[in-house]
Amino acid sequence: MSRSTLMPMEEAIVELLCMAQAQRLQDSEPVLLSDARQRVLASDLVATLDLPPWPNSAMDGYVLNVDDWNGQPLAVSQRIFAGQAPEALLPGTCARIFTGAPVPEGANSVEMQENVELLDDGRVHFNQPLTVGQNIRPQGQENRAGQVLLHAGKRLGPFELAIAAAQGFTHVHVVRRPRIALLSTGDELAEPGMPLKPGCIYNSNRTLLSHWLSALGCEVIDGGILPDQPQCTRLKLEQLQHAADLILTTGGVSAGDADCLGQVLRECGKPLFWKLAIKPGKPLTVGYFGSVPVIGLPGNPMSALVTFGLLARAYLLRIQGVEDVTPLSFPVHVGFDWPKAGSRREYLRAKLEEGRAVLYPNQSSGVLLGASWADGLVEIPEGCTLHVGDSARFIPFCDLF
Amino acid sequence: MSRSTLMPMEEAIVELLCMAQAQRLQDSEPVLLSDARQRVLASDLVATLDLPPWPNSAMDGYVLNVDDWNGQPLAVSQRIFAGQAPEALLPGTCARIFTGAPVPEGANSVEMQENVELLDDGRVHFNQPLTVGQNIRPQGQENRAGQVLLHAGKRLGPFELAIAAAQGFTHVHVVRRPRIALLSTGDELAEPGMPLKPGCIYNSNRTLLSHWLSALGCEVIDGGILPDQPQCTRLKLEQLQHAADLILTTGGVSAGDADCLGQVLRECGKPLFWKLAIKPGKPLTVGYFGSVPVIGLPGNPMSALVTFGLLARAYLLRIQGVEDVTPLSFPVHVGFDWPKAGSRREYLRAKLEEGRAVLYPNQSSGVLLGASWADGLVEIPEGCTLHVGDSARFIPFCDLF
Repeated sequence: MSRSTLMPMEEAIVELLCMAQAQRLQDSEPVLLSDARQRVLASDLVATLDLPPWPNSAMDGYVLNVDDWNGQPLAVSQRIFAGQAPEALLPGTCARIFTGAPVPEGANSVEMQENVELLDDGRVHFNQPLTVGQNIRPQGQENRAGQVLLHAGKRLGPFELAIAAAQGFTHVHVVRRPRIALLSTGDELAEPGMPLKPGCIYNSNRTLLSHWLSALGCEVIDGGILPDQPQCTRLKLEQLQHAADLILTTGGVSAGDADCLGQVLRECGKPLFWKLAIKPGKPLTVGYFGSVPVIGLPGNPMSALVTFGLLARAYLLRIQGVEDVTPLSFPVHVGFDWPKAGSRREYLRAKLEEGRAVLYPNQSSGVLLGASWADGLVEIPEGCTLHVGDSARFIPFCDLF
Repeated sequence: MSRSTLMPMEEAIVELLCMAQAQRLQDSEPVLLSDARQRVLASDLVATLDLPPWPNSAMDGYVLNVDDWNGQPLAVSQRIFAGQAPEALLPGTCARIFTGAPVPEGANSVEMQENVELLDDGRVHFNQPLTVGQNIRPQGQENRAGQVLLHAGKRLGPFELAIAAAQGFTHVHVVRRPRIALLSTGDELAEPGMPLKPGCIYNSNRTLLSHWLSALGCEVIDGGILPDQPQCTRLKLEQLQHAADLILTTGGVSAGDADCLGQVLRECGKPLFWKLAIKPGKPLTVGYFGSVPVIGLPGNPMSALVTFGLLARAYLLRIQGVEDVTPLSFPVHVGFDWPKAGSRREYLRAKLEEGRAVLYPNQSSGVLLGASWADGLVEIPEGCTLHVGDSARFIPFCDLF
């Protein structure tokens, strides 16, 4: 196959996101904060409160008004704990105050307790110069009521859900879960727990992808293992097409006689067979069965992993409304030589050791052990050679989930 | 407070891990692969199979024996699909073979179909020179039966669970979930959904930490909100001490009169009050109530976030047996000046933009919005100044979950 027929990664992502844009999920639902992790906001989260709701003390100490203070020791006129609504400060006095407690009306400065001296008569002597506003967290320092705190399309993790809780929300309004029919194709696949017949292997892609789909907020419809028979394949896809937002398959996407997924899509759908300029992961089937989108990943575990992580993941986030679907990446120095430029962009399993990317020894697309060993993928652009110490882009796995 | 009294981060981690080592969870349980994400292996996962179990074809093509081939076209004696057990190769013939199908006995080379010519008489003409082993994935290329695939103490994600599935396992043997009693202390805290009284704020730390604890494989026992009353605090801790492996609190850990958690630990336990040389997050209470470990995080959201992410997380992973509890980090160039050296190590919320770490404008410890905006934390060592373009360590948030 000549290099000119391969599809560059950027083009594949643009095409997939374009397809996703047309499949954006419209329904949303209110979900308890405790159940909303890894879901996507359906509408902007707007503050109902200033935060903090009132100026409060950042320290345990004493609060006073420095503008009418003459430098003399002050009597303590009240004690203000967090959670209390204080009286206005009596002129010519200070107040004991604790971290988080509201600053009383008429006061404008907090001195930490370590810097004062308590006199025998109960008055407080301030040793250090004081400034207006010191050790006070102003009202609205974090946000103002009415401000958009999180935009529609934001994925919700512990930080975002805590931001919603701080506003007093018990629920968030999220996009409904995408329903993904997951199918493994191939006569060679056996279910874990069953005896292994000659020529067969256990299906690991379903485990890989069903956990990954859940982490991306999806509901998985387990379509099981499909034998290499066009009739079965067509029947199964017909069953699933009304239940699923996407049919995701592994295996059966190269051009061989046994690849009946492609055959069925040619008969009953709109298949697009992409030969991607990446390694691992060249063959990818993208298309429609009837009106339901289909993404057919290659069957080799690492090929499935790379195409799911770098392509299908972006599709699944975008149909939920996530704007920024580009995974975190950063430049690293490579700890290896890459003397022979490839015609495809390579994604290599690597670990970061003292700031350098070190390769897993076996980069075969059948080998999944290296993904568990690695911290992420080093990207080697097509046509590129590298020497130890050169820079390359690194995509950590942790951001792909 | 003089700098010399502050505890360096490294020392705090060593102390916490030492405490965790003594609290290692001993019980384990078999768990279905579908339920085992974010759990920790209790014993080594040992391969029962060579993988692949037999040599197989990496391509759709034709398989032959190059050692007894004279360069002439060969007749096709069988077709071998994935999942089939082939006959031994008839001498002087080749066989049609598909990706993943076993290589028959007596064959040692696969040519991809794009490089052959099918003659009218059905024979196959090989256009290119052939080598032994080409396009064949050897038996055991990924692993050998008996090999340790994953060591006890490994956290299980989609990759690791797929590795277990590929061996035919339906279950993995994991450490039991740590049971963590989560308490928020402070009279100022209100439950989301309830009306907000003057001087009060909504409790966001519980939402932050309960999601985070779940992501670390923990079972959360919700201890609710504790008022600032030593009697209530003692009663609550007494209730929880027999149910929990750890009591995790937020708030009430500085030295103020209202900090009754410290007071109760002084009376009924072994408190250690640490003043950490970090910002945010200086005050941390670590100790025991009776025999149950207690970690008391500061109440400010960012202080709770940083101390949980960099300290409590390591503790929680280690009691489950995880060896490497150091979060992923890497050097970045900073996109800001840091002209004034601090006496504490600072953790700043930052985003990576074109390979540079850019700061969230408001780094106050009360402000959680920046954590959602940011990709992670830039670490500025104590006593250090930086200029735009200098290098600093970056800890991405995604690896802290």
